[in-house]
Amino acid sequence: MSNNTTRKPRVVIVGGGFGGLYTAKALKDAPVQVTLIDKRNFHLFQPLLYQVATGSISPADISSPLRLVLRHHKNIQVLLDEVIDLDPENKQVILKGHEPIEYDILIVATGVSHFYFGNDHWKTFAPGLKTIEDALEIRRRIFMAFEAAEKESDPEIRQAWLTFVIVGGGPTGVELAGAIAEIAHSSLTGDFRQIDTGAAKILLLEGMDRLLPPYPPELSAKAEESLTRFGVTIQTKTMVTDVSEGMVTIRQGEQVKNIQAKTILWAAGVKASSMGEVLAHRTGAKLDRAGRVIVEPDLSIAQHPNIFVIGDLANFPHQDDKPLPGVAPVAMQQGEYMAQLLKKRLKGEAVLPFYYVDHGSLAVIGHHSAVVNLGFVKLHGLLAWFIWLWAHIYYLIEFDNKLVVMVQWGWNYFTRGRGARLITGESSLATFVEVEPKETPSVTPQGAAKV
Amino acid sequence: MSNNTTRKPRVVIVGGGFGGLYTAKALKDAPVQVTLIDKRNFHLFQPLLYQVATGSISPADISSPLRLVLRHHKNIQVLLDEVIDLDPENKQVILKGHEPIEYDILIVATGVSHFYFGNDHWKTFAPGLKTIEDALEIRRRIFMAFEAAEKESDPEIRQAWLTFVIVGGGPTGVELAGAIAEIAHSSLTGDFRQIDTGAAKILLLEGMDRLLPPYPPELSAKAEESLTRFGVTIQTKTMVTDVSEGMVTIRQGEQVKNIQAKTILWAAGVKASSMGEVLAHRTGAKLDRAGRVIVEPDLSIAQHPNIFVIGDLANFPHQDDKPLPGVAPVAMQQGEYMAQLLKKRLKGEAVLPFYYVDHGSLAVIGHHSAVVNLGFVKLHGLLAWFIWLWAHIYYLIEFDNKLVVMVQWGWNYFTRGRGARLITGESSLATFVEVEPKETPSVTPQGAAKV
Repeated sequence: MSNNTTRKPRVVIVGGGFGGLYTAKALKDAPVQVTLIDKRNFHLFQPLLYQVATGSISPADISSPLRLVLRHHKNIQVLLDEVIDLDPENKQVILKGHEPIEYDILIVATGVSHFYFGNDHWKTFAPGLKTIEDALEIRRRIFMAFEAAEKESDPEIRQAWLTFVIVGGGPTGVELAGAIAEIAHSSLTGDFRQIDTGAAKILLLEGMDRLLPPYPPELSAKAEESLTRFGVTIQTKTMVTDVSEGMVTIRQGEQVKNIQAKTILWAAGVKASSMGEVLAHRTGAKLDRAGRVIVEPDLSIAQHPNIFVIGDLANFPHQDDKPLPGVAPVAMQQGEYMAQLLKKRLKGEAVLPFYYVDHGSLAVIGHHSAVVNLGFVKLHGLLAWFIWLWAHIYYLIEFDNKLVVMVQWGWNYFTRGRGARLITGESSLATFVEVEPKETPSVTPQGAAKV
Repeated sequence: MSNNTTRKPRVVIVGGGFGGLYTAKALKDAPVQVTLIDKRNFHLFQPLLYQVATGSISPADISSPLRLVLRHHKNIQVLLDEVIDLDPENKQVILKGHEPIEYDILIVATGVSHFYFGNDHWKTFAPGLKTIEDALEIRRRIFMAFEAAEKESDPEIRQAWLTFVIVGGGPTGVELAGAIAEIAHSSLTGDFRQIDTGAAKILLLEGMDRLLPPYPPELSAKAEESLTRFGVTIQTKTMVTDVSEGMVTIRQGEQVKNIQAKTILWAAGVKASSMGEVLAHRTGAKLDRAGRVIVEPDLSIAQHPNIFVIGDLANFPHQDDKPLPGVAPVAMQQGEYMAQLLKKRLKGEAVLPFYYVDHGSLAVIGHHSAVVNLGFVKLHGLLAWFIWLWAHIYYLIEFDNKLVVMVQWGWNYFTRGRGARLITGESSLATFVEVEPKETPSVTPQGAAKV
């Protein structure tokens, strides 16, 4: 495993998400030297990112400083940098702001980003939700839309400000739509003088014939029922064919429609981070259509037994015939498996292939409502919501943010408050004013069908 | 007061800081229509902004959405916009993104911003602390400096990353210096592998002969004593003559010195916001040297009995011969006075001049240490810290953020944690890498005296 038997093997982990961080934590007492490289100084608890985007909690509530989490793991060092290339011949990763780092074992866990189906220019008009910055931008757009509507005298433009389109009916889309409905129909009630925030239209668009396609159909039906009750309009079998400033073009069967909406959010596709390309180029790793790396049963890359890919970036097709889903529990289990594998290898023991134990899947719909599929039982409503809450608190308290977020939740639960609804950013007002100049009719194309 | 006796007088308040918000709140039941205009959608509890800048709490913890605070005040509407001009002839304020608004009474409370003594280009190298964005930028720089030091092999450059210069020994400078010392000597202990964060140098520069010049000399001495114990190096009678990338030039008597420091923070001068100039231009209002508007005993502008200036933007010289200090209690009392004045005017009653009741001043130095001057007694140390804590919680709970920030403080108190230390911003890594390219020696000028 190492050329030099007197020093400990060097394990380099790229990415401090669920996969990378769980690997590092599980290597705490292993006889290896670990370097964890991330371009951010914190681990992000991504399952709750939609709550930052909708003003319930603050970024720091779901962010754990990597150094703090790993401070007592003396065999682990954290390096704040970005891996831009790989040299498998010399066993080195190439960094943007530091000299190359040598590894004996390399674990790549850099995840995925948004995918606009080849239309990257849609990104400006319809941001996705992956980073803290994404969440703050979405938060800014949602709350700024109500402010702009309050000031707008043209009823058509005002309605466009009060129309929110979420593209993609997976868990993130469902969570965003439910939360925006709650903002419009509950949190902001009474805050404005000129508009009725309850007149807001929240549209959730999904290409398949039902929401939450990977879930059992009865849970999809329950989710649709709850969301409809909360005031969300669901349109399934709906393809988005164009996105521009304040406008979404959709196709439903033969019919093409334009929807005027000032706030468009993207929760549809994902593609692999750039490390997928780097691995393909440097190691010959095979990629799937989304650019994810197809891994061996032990999560390594074919022909490269010392390079592993885990988490969302990995396509693991050896179980149930289809790739494992890109969710936190898969990444966590893969991280723990990696640590076991390395420890066993060091002892010369054999290693079984990775096997994912599915404890169920769950998505929150809104205040007191969720859907949970535990396999042996399917739940929805308040009980499902408590399971969702419990699961998230359980995993969140692994690190350091537990207390504050729990108090914030308790507070929000009773007040339905959204205290974290600040509109921030250097250009917070400038953008707003520029987006809605009355002299520029092209910003809100005329003749568009209203929803 | 109004041309039309059948409608309620229109009161326009510009600025939702302590002055503007307290005016609006105190006008709750008055027979007036109030419009509060701010370019942000939240009131910022500025006295705790340094805690955001140093990673103790989140922006939302000290930000109260204006609409939420005023939601039950049905005679008040909030307008998110920026006032760019004034037309006193037609009694209108001119807005950036909205048609002009008419007023019968205008109250301007737009505060102050940083002043670099005519050297505005210093701002890039030495940000000041007035807005949430400022605080996040300072937070980014402080925590990124430790990350950069961890990666740096040149000892001289590493020490520059570990050197923090705070310009200005008033309350903000003292608070920042104390908090950075705590970060280096306590919060980050054990987080890094290559550097000893305790080797950080924190320099607090003050032009006068002691810190906290407006305080009694014995409290200045106590503050200096405590800060020194916490590891802050204080240099008084020190003038900053130049600031550039990673370098501060100071003059102490005849001696000129260069200090290499990658993190330079500005807490020295303030100047009036641009509404001061607008008022001078449109109403002939007199400005002081800092651009603040010199107001009449009833806070109005001479010859314009319907236009008032309150808070930091006002220079009120009618008490104790010198202008009142730019602190929150002055603005709050002026806001409440404004509401009383308007109510009395409507009844045709006479109004006494404004009079500031000074309940004391206080500044926090660090964990368990503050100085408090209550006039009849001067305190320092733990007891002063508890008074500081009580006063801040008391005013913070007026709005909506109380619970979470108190829990966060309690948590931090026991753990000395700084959970809100994320490095964020679109350019968070890019900037970092660009700031420290090894090929560009001009970034860290050679021959500079080390501190």
